[in-house]
This record gives sequence, structure tokens and C-alpha cells, in this order.
Amino acid sequence: MKVGFIGLGQMGSAMAARLLEAGHDVTVYNRTRARAKPLQEKGASVADTPAGACSGAEVVFTMLADDHAVEDVVFGEQGILGALPRGAVHVSSSTLSVDFTRRLAAAHAEAGERFLAAPVFGRPDVAAVGKLFVVAGGEQQTVAGVQPLLDVIGQRTFVMSSEPEAAALVKLSGNFLIASVIESVGEAMALVDRGGVDRRAYLELITSTLFNAPVYKGYGQLIADRKYEPAGFAAPLGQKDIRLVLAAAEELRVPMPVAGLLGDRLLRPLANGGEKPDWSALGDFATADSGA
Amino acid sequence: MKVGFIGLGQMGSAMAARLLEAGHDVTVYNRTRARAKPLQEKGASVADTPAGACSGAEVVFTMLADDHAVEDVVFGEQGILGALPRGAVHVSSSTLSVDFTRRLAAAHAEAGERFLAAPVFGRPDVAAVGKLFVVAGGEQQTVAGVQPLLDVIGQRTFVMSSEPEAAALVKLSGNFLIASVIESVGEAMALVDRGGVDRRAYLELITSTLFNAPVYKGYGQLIADRKYEPAGFAAPLGQKDIRLVLAAAEELRVPMPVAGLLGDRLLRPLANGGEKPDWSALGDFATADSGA
Amino acid sequence: MKVGFIGLGQMGSAMAARLLEAGHDVTVYNRTRARAKPLQEKGASVADTPAGACSGAEVVFTMLADDHAVEDVVFGEQGILGALPRGAVHVSSSTLSVDFTRRLAAAHAEAGERFLAAPVFGRPDVAAVGKLFVVAGGEQQTVAGVQPLLDVIGQRTFVMSSEPEAAALVKLSGNFLIASVIESVGEAMALVDRGGVDRRAYLELITSTLFNAPVYKGYGQLIADRKYEPAGFAAPLGQKDIRLVLAAAEELRVPMPVAGLLGDRLLRPLANGGEKPDWSALGDFATADSGA
Amino acid sequence: MKVGFIGLGQMGSAMAARLLEAGHDVTVYNRTRARAKPLQEKGASVADTPAGACSGAEVVFTMLADDHAVEDVVFGEQGILGALPRGAVHVSSSTLSVDFTRRLAAAHAEAGERFLAAPVFGRPDVAAVGKLFVVAGGEQQTVAGVQPLLDVIGQRTFVMSSEPEAAALVKLSGNFLIASVIESVGEAMALVDRGGVDRRAYLELITSTLFNAPVYKGYGQLIADRKYEPAGFAAPLGQKDIRLVLAAAEELRVPMPVAGLLGDRLLRPLANGGEKPDWSALGDFATADSGA
Repeated sequence: MKVGFIGLGQMGSAMAARLLEAGHDVTVYNRTRARAKPLQEKGASVADTPAGACSGAEVVFTMLADDHAVEDVVFGEQGILGALPRGAVHVSSSTLSVDFTRRLAAAHAEAGERFLAAPVFGRPDVAAVGKLFVVAGGEQQTVAGVQPLLDVIGQRTFVMSSEPEAAALVKLSGNFLIASVIESVGEAMALVDRGGVDRRAYLELITSTLFNAPVYKGYGQLIADRKYEPAGFAAPLGQKDIRLVLAAAEELRVPMPVAGLLGDRLLRPLANGGEKPDWSALGDFATADSGA
Repeated sequence: MKVGFIGLGQMGSAMAARLLEAGHDVTVYNRTRARAKPLQEKGASVADTPAGACSGAEVVFTMLADDHAVEDVVFGEQGILGALPRGAVHVSSSTLSVDFTRRLAAAHAEAGERFLAAPVFGRPDVAAVGKLFVVAGGEQQTVAGVQPLLDVIGQRTFVMSSEPEAAALVKLSGNFLIASVIESVGEAMALVDRGGVDRRAYLELITSTLFNAPVYKGYGQLIADRKYEPAGFAAPLGQKDIRLVLAAAEELRVPMPVAGLLGDRLLRPLANGGEKPDWSALGDFATADSGA
Repeated sequence: MKVGFIGLGQMGSAMAARLLEAGHDVTVYNRTRARAKPLQEKGASVADTPAGACSGAEVVFTMLADDHAVEDVVFGEQGILGALPRGAVHVSSSTLSVDFTRRLAAAHAEAGERFLAAPVFGRPDVAAVGKLFVVAGGEQQTVAGVQPLLDVIGQRTFVMSSEPEAAALVKLSGNFLIASVIESVGEAMALVDRGGVDRRAYLELITSTLFNAPVYKGYGQLIADRKYEPAGFAAPLGQKDIRLVLAAAEELRVPMPVAGLLGDRLLRPLANGGEKPDWSALGDFATADSGA
Repeated sequence: MKVGFIGLGQMGSAMAARLLEAGHDVTVYNRTRARAKPLQEKGASVADTPAGACSGAEVVFTMLADDHAVEDVVFGEQGILGALPRGAVHVSSSTLSVDFTRRLAAAHAEAGERFLAAPVFGRPDVAAVGKLFVVAGGEQQTVAGVQPLLDVIGQRTFVMSSEPEAAALVKLSGNFLIASVIESVGEAMALVDRGGVDRRAYLELITSTLFNAPVYKGYGQLIADRKYEPAGFAAPLGQKDIRLVLAAAEELRVPMPVAGLLGDRLLRPLANGGEKPDWSALGDFATADSGA
């Protein structure tokens, strides 16, 4: 298929590479053009504008940092909106707010364009081997049309709703669940540490038994080692996602006390360590507060 | 080996049955004697007192509800203390407070007796097939002596410390981690539910991807279905364990804000639903508070 | 002085009436014109637009529900912006977000107009007797110019900063402190109630001793009586103010755990009781959750 | 009247001095005998044991640090229990747990002795001028009998219940309310501080308007100045009282989320600053966590 791909960060580059390797005809766009180079060498065309990446495309992916970045690329000059060919689909894989996803869906609908929210779970190394999990929200027919591409970037697609915003909500909720794990493991580890138990032996125990899941292993290791730099997912991004969870919770009127606690607590790394630490630094406060 | 086994609830009965099946010579004791019947039919001797279960034993297990029950059985008339043969080991598999475990260890040491804290993770069905995880705290030599028995009831033994109280702490911390999962999944599910996502589809998503662990699957199902009776682990027991976590956190001076929040929140099922619901009812409050 | 007054809710009407009684020449504007009638009878002129209320004015007050209402009145067609006479001052007494106050100040500055943030503490009955407390943020000279009018509506003016947004922040923080009182008194009262103490006797005790302040007396009475309707300050407004506190805390990177807890908790009346109850319904949850 | 007075800390000494000044015949006891000297000079007799202070007394006061201290003095050798003359009353003014107060009441009842729980609000300087507030729990007749003495030490007596434990609960709840003030003022001050507002000007504002109460003024000053030593009421004592509140809340099954949060947070000064700071150090964490 003829595919546009906008946003070549670590995630986007890995996803676009998968599409190229699967034989698709991919045109990429990135604000900082240098990041397109490695993909160009793998056969991608390079566009000068978002609209350029839409030219002739059946599907255009966006994989960007946040609402603002997608807003620029969709609604800005030479943006996607209005540049999508008739019948083409904009597949948004970024983690976006529920509110902005709704606005995006409405704008495309008004322009007679098709839209699919398809945020993903997984880090760049997972994206590189096409093993992401895709959370989709959109019309059944729209999903069906892009499924072959989703199967190239992900190992499984979960269609949560015909409403794109529901996919955004589910993706955000997943990040909340991860943050809860970071905090609770951080508290438990601070406790047993003070009680004389070795942090790594404890991690080995919990991840061999009840919590044999990658989230516990990966974040647990960082917390056991108290090593939060370099960031895989920087604290400000994590804080932003919990803020978006709380905004959705407010709109939907769902009291979420742990989410509130985490949103508050994630301000601490920002206040003290600036932008640099990983969001798993959240898991260090219980240890730090215990005087260790 | 010649083994005493005290406490024949669902867990204890399953563990004692495993020991019998493995060919050990087991004498059981239970306050309500009727519960000893099925084991008697499998070949167990039945004692009239805790001390009776110690007679001639190399190892005596206790598997009871809480500190008070163990206190009665160890320090009471015809109790274990003083009745243990020279060189025999008291293996305590109950979930106890750190404080009481310390007292227990000290009392046995003073009496010239050996003691091993060996609480377990796993429910009765897991105990029935000998697949528990054992968290051990005690002298290396003591552990080594009972290891053949631990291998009959569990699939793996984690020795956390030479101090019994460390094993108690680790076990309690595990229950805290489980309660955190219940709460956070409850909040996430309330959120996506209000956002129009099917609760079971959501559970399928999170447990197929990031949270592919039994705790998420088991408790997630109860929360998705909003079905909290009959209790597998009753709310008052869960509340008690979080209280013991908070008591340990206080003694060790480790601030644990999520533990504090959970301890508070677990009073709600007790206040409103009495003793009956499972502790996973904790995971329902976010949904209930959202007006659903 | 010649004064414009925009926004004739309970608070605005009382403040405008004070200005009239003090002999000032007041032109009022309200979207729902009928509310201007009582003031017209006291001698006020009535304008058809916000700009009309600015005509010839030395000072124009706005006293409106929230950011949106002020946005309409300032930036909308026939709005204040651009209609203020040279040298005139826009005095904003509404409770607004820090962010919007900053935008408002910047817009007026850009238009060569003067602006003073002057939110107030006090309810309508206090406004009616000119006993409000005024929290001012703006240039010293600007404050000095309107001080005679502030002295008519308030008993004292606190100049917190030359930055208008600081006054907005201080006002919001005050509402946070009030919400904290509601919650903590609610928890304390639930506790002693369950312990067999009469709620009103308890209120009498605490407000005669340590907490001899109007906030404790007023809200304490509502909580003791469990009577939350009709609303003096509706729950959605309270929830909005705490949200604005949290937004400011996020921007300034100040972790505020109690504010986070209150923001979460204030969603409950909205989810369950709709828009109607007073925000002091927050103080009832501890009692309700205790099964009473 | 003939009065015994046990416990000559700052509070007890001030209270005993008042009783002497009012012309009563006072026999004092303190574990560290040197503290009795100043009272002896004012005319007090000095006993060698708690029982000695009871000899011939109509009323015996205890004013001690905690449950343990009272336990020693009442149940210990040469303790109050059994030494009280027929018809005499033990007036307990210490801040005690609900549970221990119940035990105390039961023990006196069993011994055919009379008991009144009468904890007080106020600091030593307030005690010195007889302006404490007394919270009483006990039989009406018992209260009536000691009222003349209560009127010497306090400005007003609030009889909350015929059950002594209710007075203990009310006293503890008051300390919870104070801790809530410390925390919320701490958060508000951190916020406005970061927003460029002077901390002392802010305190002046809030305590001149909505929160014109001594608790806000006294603790607010400490927080504004960030000065937490020397302690007026040390952090470990404050933490203990919140723990007793939470224990009562658990027994009565009253979820108190702010109390839970405070109990957790009060561990931080203990973990980090040891025993020395005042409990108002609780009010500094928001500022510290904001990076200031």
C-alpha cells in the first residue's frame, strides 16, 4: 500500500521501518529532516511537509509527542487536514488526550475524511520487531482497511470502540496502571529494604511469583537499582499522561484517588530533578522519604 | 519425616494432604476437630492439643488465621512452646505481623527451640497441587533441614533473610502489592466504563498485553463482573493485612502513601457490607462513586 | 466616580448596590437584563452591552462566574477590551484561573489599558454590608486609584503583588483552604459521631475553642446537620476552583497531596447528586462511608 | 479540696500550680522528683509514689505523656488503682488512646473507684493562666464533683458523654483537625510562595480574614518562617496522636482519607529529622518538594 508516515522519533522510526520492510511504499515526514535519513536509505521517500506525505497515500500514520505536535501537523499550514486523498485514512498512533482525539475525529469527519485512533503499547525495541499492541477506536470498516498495516507494526489489535476517543482513553488508562505499579513497587521496596531485605532478591521474588509481567520486571529493576537516568520515558511525559487521565476522569466524573495521588507525586521529579529522570523516579520517593 | 500440622483451614488442609501424599508421617491438630476427619482418612493421626501434635515430631507446621490464633496455639496451655522435641523446628506459614513474628522467634530461641517463618503465596487450589511459593526467614541450617518438606508444599522457596520477621514483612508487602492492583484496576475500569468501553474487553486487553499476570486476571475478572461474593479472601482479612503493613511502615518509618490510602479505603466494605464481601470489593468503589 | 459594573449575580448585585449607595454614578450590564432592574430602581443606568458599561467610566468592575464568562465579556463583540476609556481601569473581582488572569492582564496591557485583579472573600450577605476582603494584584498606582471604590465594597484590601495573577492564585488558595476545612471537619465529625458523640455538641466545642473562625462555624453547621441544599456555593463551582488550584500547582510544580485528594473527592457529589448540592457535601462522605 | 497531682511536665506543673494558687491542698508526684521542687516551694506536699499522692485525696489528677506512662502510674506497683480512697475520683487529663481509656475506665469501675476522662486543649502558657478547655467524659455526678477544680485549670468544660472514651476520641479528633490545618496551610503557602507571594503577607491575609483563629496564627507563623525547632509539640508525639486517631477510625470503621494521608506524611520528619522538630514540620514538605 501507499503509506505516509509522520513523526520519526524512536517509536515512529521503528514503525516506519517495519512498514518498509514489509514492502509498502512509504513516504515519511519529520520536522527535523535529518531523522528521515536512515529510512530514506531503506527506500522511503521524504516529503517536505505533512501534506506532502499525504500525496497519493491510502493511509497516513502520525506518531508524535503530544496533542500540540499532532495539532500542528493536522491543522497547520500544509497539514494533513484537507490533504488526505478521498477515502484515505489518518491513523493516529500517538498518546493523545481524549478531548483532542474527539476534536481530531470531528475535524476529519467534517472534512469528509476517515480517521482511526490507534495508539500502541510497547517501547522502541518492541516496535522494531513489530510486536506492539494496538488499541484501536474507529469504524469497523476503517479498521478493516488498515488491518494489514496494523499487523505489520503490532502483534495484536484490540478494537475497543467505534469511537476514536475511547481508544485514547484506554491507552491513557494503561499508562495510569503502569504508574500505579511504579509507585506501589517503590513503596513495597522501600519497606522491605528498611526491614533488611535485599532489593534485588525481593524483585526476583515478586516477579517470579505473583507479578510475572514485563512491567514489574522492567520498572522493578530500575527501582531496585535506584537508577533513573537516562530516561526511557521522561518524567514530564509521564506526568502529562497522568494529567490527561485526570482530565478525562474529571470530564467523566470518575473519582480516582490513586490517580490523583500519582499526578501530585509526579510533580516532585519535575520540581527537583528537572526534565531528565525517567518517570520511574516516582518509585524512589518512598525510599528517599524513609531517610535512605 | 515425622511432622505435626496445626491449623486445618482450606490452606492448611491442602498443605497437610500434600505432606501425607508424599509419604510423611503426619499428626494434625485443629481446634474444631471435625476438620481433621478427611486427613485422618488419608492416614493422618489426630492430636487433641497443639502439644500433642508436637510429640515426637521433627517439624511442626502452623497455618492459622492471624497473630491471635498462633498466640493461642504457641503460648497457650498445651501449646507448642516447650512441647517441641529437642532440635525440632516450628515452621510458621501463617501471615503474621512483623512484631508478633519477632516475639515468636524470640520465645522459641529462649526456649532453646528452632523456628522458621515460612509464609506462602497462593490460594487453596494452588496449595492442593503443591505449587505454592514459600517465603522463608530463618537460619540457613534450619531452612536446609525442612527444605524437603517445603518442596512438597511449594514449587520454590525464597530465603529472604536469616531473620524470621523479614519473611513476615515480605509476605505482607506482597498483599499490599495485590491490594494496589485491585485498587488501580478498579479505578481504570471505572474510567473506561464511563467512557463507553466494555469492562471485559478492557480486561482482556490489559491482561493480554502489559499485565499478563495471574493477579490481574483473577482480580480483574471479579472487578469487571462486579461480583464480590462469595469471598475468596474476605475484606476484613485484607484490611487486617494492610493494617499490619502500615504498622510495619510506621515502625520502620517508611512513608507509604498508597498503602495509607488503601488502608483507609478498605474500611468502607467493612462499614457497609459487613464481613462478607471479598477484599476485591475495594476495586468497586471507583465505579460506585462514579454513579454507576 | 463614574463606574461600570458587569455581572449582577448575588455577589455583583450587592457590590454594585454598595457603590450606588456611596454616591457613585454606576452603569450596570448583565446578560440577563432583568437582574438589572433592582439596581436601576436604586439609580443605576443600564447598558445593553459590556462596551456600553465602559462608556465614560473611570473604573469598570466585572464579577462573573468563571473564565469563560469573563472571556465573553472582555474579548467578545462589544466587549470591554478596546472600549475602556484611556486611563480607565478594569477591576476583575471574579475568581479566575491564574492562566486566564495572566492572559487578561497581557491583553489589557497590549491595548494600552489598565487592569487590576481584585477577587474577594465573602458571601453575598457580607458584600451587602461592604465587609468583603479584597485581594489585589496590580500596579501600586492602579490600586491607589481605585482604592476609594474598594473601600466601599470591602473592609480591607490586601495588595499581594504587582502581578494580577498572584491575586488570582491567592484567592484560589483560599478556596482550597476552605475545602480542606470542610473535608477535615467532615472526617472528624464522622469519627466522633460513630463514637457516640452528638454532632452539634462537637461543633460547639471545636468552634468555641481552637477553631473559633467563621469558616468552621458556617460549614461545620451544614456538616453537623447533614444539610447540603440549597447550595450557597454549588459543588461544581467548588470542584472547578480546586481544579484551578491543581492547574496552578502543576504549572508551578508544587505537589499538594491534600488538594489532589480534594479534587478527586469533589467529583463524587457531581457524579451522584448532579449540580445541586453545596460543595460542603464533600464533608459528608466520611459519614456516608462509615455506613451512617 | 485535698488533691493529688501526678505528672509534672510543662502542662502538669502549670495545672498543679493553678490548683495550689486557688488554695487547694495538693500532693504531687513525679518520677523525676526534681521537677516537684518549684511546686513544693509554692506549698505542695511531695509523695514518693503514685499511691502516696492518693493518700487522703478526694481527687487525683494524672497529666502524662501517653498510654504507657499512665499505665505505669495506674497499674504499676504503688499505683493509683486500689490506692484511691473510697469515693475519690481519678481525673485523667492526658491525651490517651480510646482503647486504653476504655480499659482504664473498666479497671476503676471494677475496683469500685470513680474515673473521669478530662483531656485538655491548650499549651503550657494557657495552662498557667487557667484558660484551658476541658473535654470531659464521665458520669454527670462525677463531673459535678470535680467541676470546681476543672474551673481552676480551665475556662470552660465541655461534657461530651458519660463514657470516658468519648472524651478521649474528641481530644484526638482535635489534634487531627490541627494537623489538617498544618498540612493545608503548608500546601497553600508553598503554592503562593512559588507564585511570587510573600509568605508572611499571605499569612497576614488569611489570618485576618477567613481563618482568624489561634491555630492558624500560631502554626502559620512557624510554616511561614520555616522554623520548626525547638519543638513545642514534637513530631513523634503528633505522629502518635494521628496513629491513635487512625486506630479509633479503624475500630469504628470510619474511612478518613486525610487522616490516613497525614499519618503517612508524619513519618517523614521522623525518618529524616529524628525526634527533634515540631510536628508543624509536616507543613514544610510541600515547600520542600516544590524544590524551594
